[in-house]
Amino acid sequence: MTDTNEILKVHEDHTGVLDIQSDLGVHNKADLGKAYTPGVAVLSKLIAKHPELKNKYTVSGKLVALITDGSAVLGLGNIGPAGGLPVIEGKALLYKDLAGINAIPIAVNQESPEEIVKTIQNISQSFAGIHLEDIAAPKCFEIEDALSQTLNIPVYHDDQEGTAIVVLAGLINAAKVVGKSLDYLHVVINGIGASGLATAKLLYAAGITHLTLVDVYGVVTANDSRYNRYQREFAAQIGTSDDQKGLKLTDVMDDQDVFIGLSDQHLLSGHDVQRMAQDPIIFALANPVPEIEPEEAAKAGAKVIATGSSQHPNQVNNILAFPGLFKGLLASGITHVDAKLQLVVAKALASVVQTPTAEEVVPGVFNEQVVATVSQAVEDYADDQDQQRELVTED
Amino acid sequence: MTDTNEILKVHEDHTGVLDIQSDLGVHNKADLGKAYTPGVAVLSKLIAKHPELKNKYTVSGKLVALITDGSAVLGLGNIGPAGGLPVIEGKALLYKDLAGINAIPIAVNQESPEEIVKTIQNISQSFAGIHLEDIAAPKCFEIEDALSQTLNIPVYHDDQEGTAIVVLAGLINAAKVVGKSLDYLHVVINGIGASGLATAKLLYAAGITHLTLVDVYGVVTANDSRYNRYQREFAAQIGTSDDQKGLKLTDVMDDQDVFIGLSDQHLLSGHDVQRMAQDPIIFALANPVPEIEPEEAAKAGAKVIATGSSQHPNQVNNILAFPGLFKGLLASGITHVDAKLQLVVAKALASVVQTPTAEEVVPGVFNEQVVATVSQAVEDYADDQDQQRELVTED
Repeated sequence: MTDTNEILKVHEDHTGVLDIQSDLGVHNKADLGKAYTPGVAVLSKLIAKHPELKNKYTVSGKLVALITDGSAVLGLGNIGPAGGLPVIEGKALLYKDLAGINAIPIAVNQESPEEIVKTIQNISQSFAGIHLEDIAAPKCFEIEDALSQTLNIPVYHDDQEGTAIVVLAGLINAAKVVGKSLDYLHVVINGIGASGLATAKLLYAAGITHLTLVDVYGVVTANDSRYNRYQREFAAQIGTSDDQKGLKLTDVMDDQDVFIGLSDQHLLSGHDVQRMAQDPIIFALANPVPEIEPEEAAKAGAKVIATGSSQHPNQVNNILAFPGLFKGLLASGITHVDAKLQLVVAKALASVVQTPTAEEVVPGVFNEQVVATVSQAVEDYADDQDQQRELVTED
Repeated sequence: MTDTNEILKVHEDHTGVLDIQSDLGVHNKADLGKAYTPGVAVLSKLIAKHPELKNKYTVSGKLVALITDGSAVLGLGNIGPAGGLPVIEGKALLYKDLAGINAIPIAVNQESPEEIVKTIQNISQSFAGIHLEDIAAPKCFEIEDALSQTLNIPVYHDDQEGTAIVVLAGLINAAKVVGKSLDYLHVVINGIGASGLATAKLLYAAGITHLTLVDVYGVVTANDSRYNRYQREFAAQIGTSDDQKGLKLTDVMDDQDVFIGLSDQHLLSGHDVQRMAQDPIIFALANPVPEIEPEEAAKAGAKVIATGSSQHPNQVNNILAFPGLFKGLLASGITHVDAKLQLVVAKALASVVQTPTAEEVVPGVFNEQVVATVSQAVEDYADDQDQQRELVTED
């Protein structure tokens, strides 16, 4: 356990954990001419004429904005924009240390999705990508949709796509461990917020059609008005029967192959695990306390167990996704993080573990192959897309 | 003359001239615990309870936002937010290289003052100060007023306060050179935009009451509806006679001690200079070509000549103000850059030149005393204010 005083000291010593670095020392008139006037006048004139050249000659071509409104911070809930700053600052540090990416934390002091969208649009020309963080569902869906549709830079919500990618990567390997085919898995997802819904969507895109979504009112169905539009639309899309309305988690655990929890502590019992199909896979990802303790799940027969904690094997951690993903995005110029790309990244991430075992379905967060493999997969995907586009043009 | 290709290369090599620097290498689980989870959860909880602690534990306590809408970039006019990026990026570099300050360029893609204000307010919790740049008059006045009144961090518009401070500093020393008392100077200011009006206001605050303001329609008077509200209000404040309405620059040059040009090239003739009082002071600050060429002004009898160019002695350059000013602001916690503080900074800057001469009324931009002297003056001013506050409390 890290000591609280030590944590405070680390963040107090430099006032945060980031600094701006100058790439050019200005010591005399010649330096000044290049870094400032008249040098910047040359650039400003050029960019005024060809705005896209800003990406070549200014930091806006490489800088990622890490943005939160502080409405869903870690397990702490809606603690406001200032409270959300340490998380996005920590992620900016990880971007730099793990992938050499320049990112800057920005807290938005607004609650309405419309205002948050407008604010981000208004400053978007300063950035090469938008990483949304810790924004509550369902407004996070609306915000990401609106930004993706209007900006021509990548927009990514770590709590959605990041979690979905790492869960799918882990599940690809877990299925191998238990000798089951991915698309025949029966999967229950408990907790259909930002991460739960995005995970469900990505699993569905990966061919997993036997999905049961459960949240506070029981199984999510298209006709249950207690659930939001995004939850109900997806329940309709996957064909959840209206008869399942109101069934509780424990009512739907029979014969399931996989339990994915993105909810709260101790919601799953050993008895629930015992009723699952052979060799159950348990991803109990609630933090800091999982939906079921790994020891209890193992005792009840779980074959593969993953959690969100570094205290156990198989830590499902978004650190495995975002640094490599954005490295690839910035290198390739891809502007949309769509389902196809998320699948590519999940498969690449899974492939880092060459021989999956029950104890290792995802790589460790300091495995140096992760960033390299993920970013390369994104670049390869971009090349494929370009080639396909050329073939279409040739037709 | 710096070569254009060389300028482009410098800005292309690193994609801009800034990078984000990590203050903490993350190499293992212990590092991760301090930099990210669980460390950030400790901070987020603390800041959620005491929001002001964000300034102690996150970069928001030291980071300056350099913000433009690109509506008045250098001499290029309204070239839009992308075109404005190189200037604010260059200033971010100068902040770092000259004063160790962390600043980040942000272009706002909005034209209305209300939207610009709202956008900056919405992201303001991420920053310790706001440096506005290259925003056209009169909207810059409205924007700065609204932000200063609503934010509790310093808001500064370099084209206004920065220019005003450096002009006053130069004028303090120029008055010494010609042996005239500052408050008896008769001063014409030509060009009453952002910098002209701010300069007029600061000179007035410094005790210079004999001010004549001239812009495109001639002398600015309170009743001339062709001028904006801010220009007319100040003309009323300094008691400009309505009879002067429409008088051109050349009509008001007789017996003036000082000409300050913040307008356009070659608007002042040698003949105008000859009609001024003894030992005229000429600050011909239009860039890149001044209101009168220094050689012509000298031939016509000008005693002290300053320009905006590094090609001549006495370069009036805002670089002399903003790095030291913000260093002092961040160190002292002062939240408003009011007229009193601007006077303090101007006097401090003037004092760097120990024996003013006609060739040196402002220090050179690489004089290392500048930042140290200016920032110390701001800190001393803050201490004085604190002491006065304590005395009032004791009464």
